[in-house]
Amino acid sequence: MADYTKMWQELDVDIEKHDGLCEVLPMFYENIYLSQENRPENMNYYNFVISEVHGLRIKELQDSKKEDKKVVGSFCVFVPDEITLALNCVPVGICSGSQFWVPDGEKVMPRNTCPLIKASIGAKLSRTCPYFQSCDMVVGETTCDGKKKAWEILGEHMDVHVMDLPQMKREKDKLHWIDEMNTYKDVLEEKTGNKLSFENLKEKTELVNKKRKVLKRLYDLRKCDPVPISGKDALLVSQIAFYDDIDRFIEQTNNLCDELEERVKKDEGVFDKDTPRIMITGTPMSIPNWKIHHIVETSDAVVVCEETCTGTRYFENQVSEDAENMDEQFENLANRYLGINCACFTPNEGRVEDVLRYVDEYKVDAVVYNSLQFCSTYAIEYKNIEKALKEKGIPVIMIETDYSEEDTGQIKTRVEALVEMVREKKGVMA
Amino acid sequence: MADYTKMWQELDVDIEKHDGLCEVLPMFYENIYLSQENRPENMNYYNFVISEVHGLRIKELQDSKKEDKKVVGSFCVFVPDEITLALNCVPVGICSGSQFWVPDGEKVMPRNTCPLIKASIGAKLSRTCPYFQSCDMVVGETTCDGKKKAWEILGEHMDVHVMDLPQMKREKDKLHWIDEMNTYKDVLEEKTGNKLSFENLKEKTELVNKKRKVLKRLYDLRKCDPVPISGKDALLVSQIAFYDDIDRFIEQTNNLCDELEERVKKDEGVFDKDTPRIMITGTPMSIPNWKIHHIVETSDAVVVCEETCTGTRYFENQVSEDAENMDEQFENLANRYLGINCACFTPNEGRVEDVLRYVDEYKVDAVVYNSLQFCSTYAIEYKNIEKALKEKGIPVIMIETDYSEEDTGQIKTRVEALVEMVREKKGVMA
Ligand code: SF4
Ligand code: SF4
Repeated sequence: MADYTKMWQELDVDIEKHDGLCEVLPMFYENIYLSQENRPENMNYYNFVISEVHGLRIKELQDSKKEDKKVVGSFCVFVPDEITLALNCVPVGICSGSQFWVPDGEKVMPRNTCPLIKASIGAKLSRTCPYFQSCDMVVGETTCDGKKKAWEILGEHMDVHVMDLPQMKREKDKLHWIDEMNTYKDVLEEKTGNKLSFENLKEKTELVNKKRKVLKRLYDLRKCDPVPISGKDALLVSQIAFYDDIDRFIEQTNNLCDELEERVKKDEGVFDKDTPRIMITGTPMSIPNWKIHHIVETSDAVVVCEETCTGTRYFENQVSEDAENMDEQFENLANRYLGINCACFTPNEGRVEDVLRYVDEYKVDAVVYNSLQFCSTYAIEYKNIEKALKEKGIPVIMIETDYSEEDTGQIKTRVEALVEMVREKKGVMA
Repeated sequence: MADYTKMWQELDVDIEKHDGLCEVLPMFYENIYLSQENRPENMNYYNFVISEVHGLRIKELQDSKKEDKKVVGSFCVFVPDEITLALNCVPVGICSGSQFWVPDGEKVMPRNTCPLIKASIGAKLSRTCPYFQSCDMVVGETTCDGKKKAWEILGEHMDVHVMDLPQMKREKDKLHWIDEMNTYKDVLEEKTGNKLSFENLKEKTELVNKKRKVLKRLYDLRKCDPVPISGKDALLVSQIAFYDDIDRFIEQTNNLCDELEERVKKDEGVFDKDTPRIMITGTPMSIPNWKIHHIVETSDAVVVCEETCTGTRYFENQVSEDAENMDEQFENLANRYLGINCACFTPNEGRVEDVLRYVDEYKVDAVVYNSLQFCSTYAIEYKNIEKALKEKGIPVIMIETDYSEEDTGQIKTRVEALVEMVREKKGVMA
């Protein structure tokens, strides 16, 4: 493996602390990922990406910077990559999914804060995330209380622009979001010296749509029984989508889907036919948060769908490509982005409909509602989703957890009970 | 005492459960309030209001309704009473401050939710709050995650209108708030059949300003040493301001201030001169939440100021009365309301400035930062306020608590240590 120490030093990474992270990650990945049986060949690409997560991809970002591209970090699926890309910047998703960063986050934020936020702030403060260190700026949004305040803290350490996501979805809120996207464009134009053109935006809209399409293709393949790819692997692909080179990601993921299609034709899967099919719904799972998927898939069940920001909310619905001018293009963007049914909106009826529809589409046997600790909006929406699922006869459990491993045993017991119940209902033996 | 049972029945109050509340409240009030020494004579009015809190005032609301007035509940200092009053409605603040309602709230919301929200929802669901039961509608706002989602639950049980409070304070956010106030006006016009006139709005703006003025007058008197009124009593006055008849409240509170002025002239106070002066900053204290004040004032210290929604944020800054038409009037309203420095905004630099200014104005010796449990925005802002206060040499402690009494002993120990430190610094003996 290449030695990236010099690059990290140039990025002002805390090398010693970062070494600690580099030491644990490969083993962690090996235990969770490489232990899987019958993985698609094409997962090798994603294995490689992970092995180079702080290496080659970071090197690529530095190379982009030499070509005068800016690297723009974001934490949320509402920040429009189309605009970032069209202004010749490289967007990277930098939500953090590891307990490693939480203690540093807790130095400046209350412990009663969502682990994703604490880890993200901790990653910056501890200077151990080379993605963060590569960012010329980051874009926050007003999705939740914790994030709103986190940007203020982050702003003391780097250039932060905050987009004000509307809290509702009325016509005037759409106009507000169009305006916010325009402000974002202005900020990026100022930062880069580039000017947004209709052609560029059109081209990048088509490109991001392609990424959405390939993720949709992947998810559609998960609707088959037996399922040709594990939930863990699908989650990994989707997590990598947030920071990988977009063209390469699309190509590689199409290759993966080709292979999965072959599997489906041959009725081949990673799990036996009739394995209980679990949908996960709730808060995002940032890399390397594989906790719940690993528990489910080592409990004789398979995850077939994630109604999360690192799942369907990331890729569902295309941006319409019929715009003839910039204004129409921005309106199309707003229509797509405000179609995301995040719990941060009030009301958010669309999410219940999505969940019920996915239950049918993905032939879901049971649902695991996963909420990061202290995420009020998702925790509160549980009652509603639970009610709708129960009416449909779909069992559901609520798991509120953080990034630590302390509660793993307890969660496993609950998941096993859920799976057992499904197996009995389906008349399948474990 | 009059028998209000029939009235409560007509309001669909759960009489049996409500009896439970009526049984405990007087004793609770007696212990906390009537035990105080040297209270101003004019506090008798507020004693009376409390003794009739579910009686006479509720009767008045029913009488208003007979005169075709609508009763409009709200939970936040951002909802503009001026508009409510000008459309011939009676505004009542119905944030709930008692543990009594929490268990019912927890039936539909996660326990990890701010007690104010759980109690408010619980008060409605349990049908034990005659204010809630009197409301023709309630107005929510998008101040925090918990509230945003609470309105959805509340909406299943009554008529709820949600105002979208901006998350920032740029010029365009002001326009958005003006628009939201207009929408609120439309909703109320529809509901009442009345039409908002410039004259009415002007008149009610002046009226609400008068209420702010008298509260400011009260608070200004607390700047004196010895302080002529206890923090507990001042808090009570301000809590009652949220639901009392506005004209009577202004008159009575001016009477109280007259008396306090006399006291000041005679150098009379409720506590000895040089008693450690505590400011409380943080989340609102809804009636009957007197927990922290009671602890402080039974620990040889006095509360002289509250930088909270039930304190300075409620009355500071007048609405300018120079408008010549409706548009200007709405703009003046927006200017005043968006001048409130609530932690729900990002950024919220103004709050630090307010806190530091009050420390000087009220001659504050130490600060108690009080955050209701699970209120992320106020909890996160603590670090910033703490830093600013420490730089100024003002000791501060953070108390995160709910409505239960379990942690009272522990909080008292911490408050006593704070007071002790101040006494030593001031060279005053306890
Ligand atoms: S999981 Fe919830 S609390 Fe955490 S960042 Fe997302 S919306 Fe905010
Ligand atoms: S105290 Fe905090 S969490 Fe509770 S209602 Fe107010 S802003 Fe929301």
